[in-house]
Amino acid sequence: MPNENPIFELRTDPIVGRRVLIAEDRAGRPNDFLAPEASREDASTVADCPFCAGNESRTPESLLEVAGETGPWQVRVVPNKYPAVTLDPPLASSRPGTPLPGIPPLGTHEVFIESPRHVRDITELSAAELARVLRVHRQRLHDWSADERIRQVIIFKNVGNPAGASLEHLHSQLVALPEVPAVIAAELQAGHEYHSAHGECIFCALLRDELADGRRLVASNDSFVAFCASAGRQPYETWILPREHYASFEQLTIEDSESLAALLQDVIGRLQAQLTPLAYNLILHTSPTGQADVAHYHWHFELVPRSTQLAGFEWGTGMHINPLAPERAAARLRDVA
Amino acid sequence: MPNENPIFELRTDPIVGRRVLIAEDRAGRPNDFLAPEASREDASTVADCPFCAGNESRTPESLLEVAGETGPWQVRVVPNKYPAVTLDPPLASSRPGTPLPGIPPLGTHEVFIESPRHVRDITELSAAELARVLRVHRQRLHDWSADERIRQVIIFKNVGNPAGASLEHLHSQLVALPEVPAVIAAELQAGHEYHSAHGECIFCALLRDELADGRRLVASNDSFVAFCASAGRQPYETWILPREHYASFEQLTIEDSESLAALLQDVIGRLQAQLTPLAYNLILHTSPTGQADVAHYHWHFELVPRSTQLAGFEWGTGMHINPLAPERAAARLRDVA
Repeated sequence: MPNENPIFELRTDPIVGRRVLIAEDRAGRPNDFLAPEASREDASTVADCPFCAGNESRTPESLLEVAGETGPWQVRVVPNKYPAVTLDPPLASSRPGTPLPGIPPLGTHEVFIESPRHVRDITELSAAELARVLRVHRQRLHDWSADERIRQVIIFKNVGNPAGASLEHLHSQLVALPEVPAVIAAELQAGHEYHSAHGECIFCALLRDELADGRRLVASNDSFVAFCASAGRQPYETWILPREHYASFEQLTIEDSESLAALLQDVIGRLQAQLTPLAYNLILHTSPTGQADVAHYHWHFELVPRSTQLAGFEWGTGMHINPLAPERAAARLRDVA
Repeated sequence: MPNENPIFELRTDPIVGRRVLIAEDRAGRPNDFLAPEASREDASTVADCPFCAGNESRTPESLLEVAGETGPWQVRVVPNKYPAVTLDPPLASSRPGTPLPGIPPLGTHEVFIESPRHVRDITELSAAELARVLRVHRQRLHDWSADERIRQVIIFKNVGNPAGASLEHLHSQLVALPEVPAVIAAELQAGHEYHSAHGECIFCALLRDELADGRRLVASNDSFVAFCASAGRQPYETWILPREHYASFEQLTIEDSESLAALLQDVIGRLQAQLTPLAYNLILHTSPTGQADVAHYHWHFELVPRSTQLAGFEWGTGMHINPLAPERAAARLRDVA
């Protein structure tokens, strides 16, 4: 139900400082997955999908369009119609009554529509198409890195309802924020401490250890390595790192985009063979803006398949329970024909 | 599928230090919710439920049984048949090949079966029955607090499949750990800093502010107050605090258990009127063992209804997006007849 005077704020937990975006407009999002099973098929037709070619009028105007071999475009970047952050926040004076305990939710929120066709996962793209999508990610990261208001860009993909997707047409999202969020800050801190102590990137050291150990390796090529995280939070959690040290995804070359696309499709294909239907979050971890060359950070993807629910134990401790050992998960993924 | 040589370890993320329990035996848990809708009703009959009276042989032997007005028992405490931690860890030498990157997952994991009847939520208990359950929670917290191996006791309840429950018969769980987990440690740190600066408990200050502000209040009685958290992570996230300063749930009196039971039933009833079906996690936050009297911590419940999925943004940042303002959520809960 729509709310009058929707509230749109960044709030901070009064005890532990956790950040929460209150974004009431998002409650109005369309949702392919709320429909009953019988009618879900309808939502996947071109006519009903706002992301399909021909329905461009149902999204905001493109910020960027990239042509493919066929059709009017292959990738469209559009503002998220239901953003969690904005560079044009509502004026505080528009709020009735006493002030609410938040501040304007500064940032930008974009959607990458990754194909004009109604496809559901990256394995339905050609390798060249996926490489092109990755280069558009790199481009928008680069664009926002030049904006003085922005400190961190987060790029992520949600596939499937258990992973929080509301539309099934293949897409990804970018959120640019004026501060470095807790997850990235913790990695930077660990990377800084390790580099100070050992003179080496902590991720480079981890990659060397995983290659030497071998039990958690899933797939690799000349430029990238995929392995199951030794302390994976969910079954089959997989990290993908460039072999060479690069702090920022901005440093992705055209050749690398092709290698990365091939490896991502390989890994997702293996996961699809183990988990049906496959739902996952794919999250790019890259250095804050202006830190593209630091020695203590190493960009990577964290791929989190979503087959188990977080429960009270996880919410109350910050610990996770994973019922499948990463070594066994990796062996199963390696065994996929 | 059962695994040979199931792996059972506490692991630490090599970058940020996050703790993960690898507990492969848990993959074999029974699950009421995996059955198709049509046959789910069958799983809720007494014959099929391991927690119903008459089926005691399908659980491990009771650690504690409490009699009710009728029947052989009202509350049973049993070891979790699929524990995430254990005080009898498998010997490291039983692991084949090179060592895995974990240590024994020390702790204990218990289940509270809260009724001999096949009930699904606390609103189906009498207030006296729920008060008795809360006193059994207090008793087990007290028991484990005397064990030198234990530093922190976590007690939580998962209701509904979206909240991670695998069985619908009303139950809760206790996990006792040899270390203070990250979520509680962050609260203790914040409480310590605030008390050092202001000479007051940070939770007492928050409670005073919420009572004065009033917009997020849900319900209260002489001893307890329920309000929507100002930076709630999910719609309708509600915290319940004792009005008086108590660091540990061990300090719960018989009279308090009755007040608390009444308020919990009131709040859950209001949530059931807004969210159907209601799925939630209810998590007790209490001080570490041996710190029952500290001035800088205040026990409380965090009640997290589960109506939206965590997605890539949350996994990649540690921030949350909540599409319902806590002020509006509280107003709706207050309005329930």
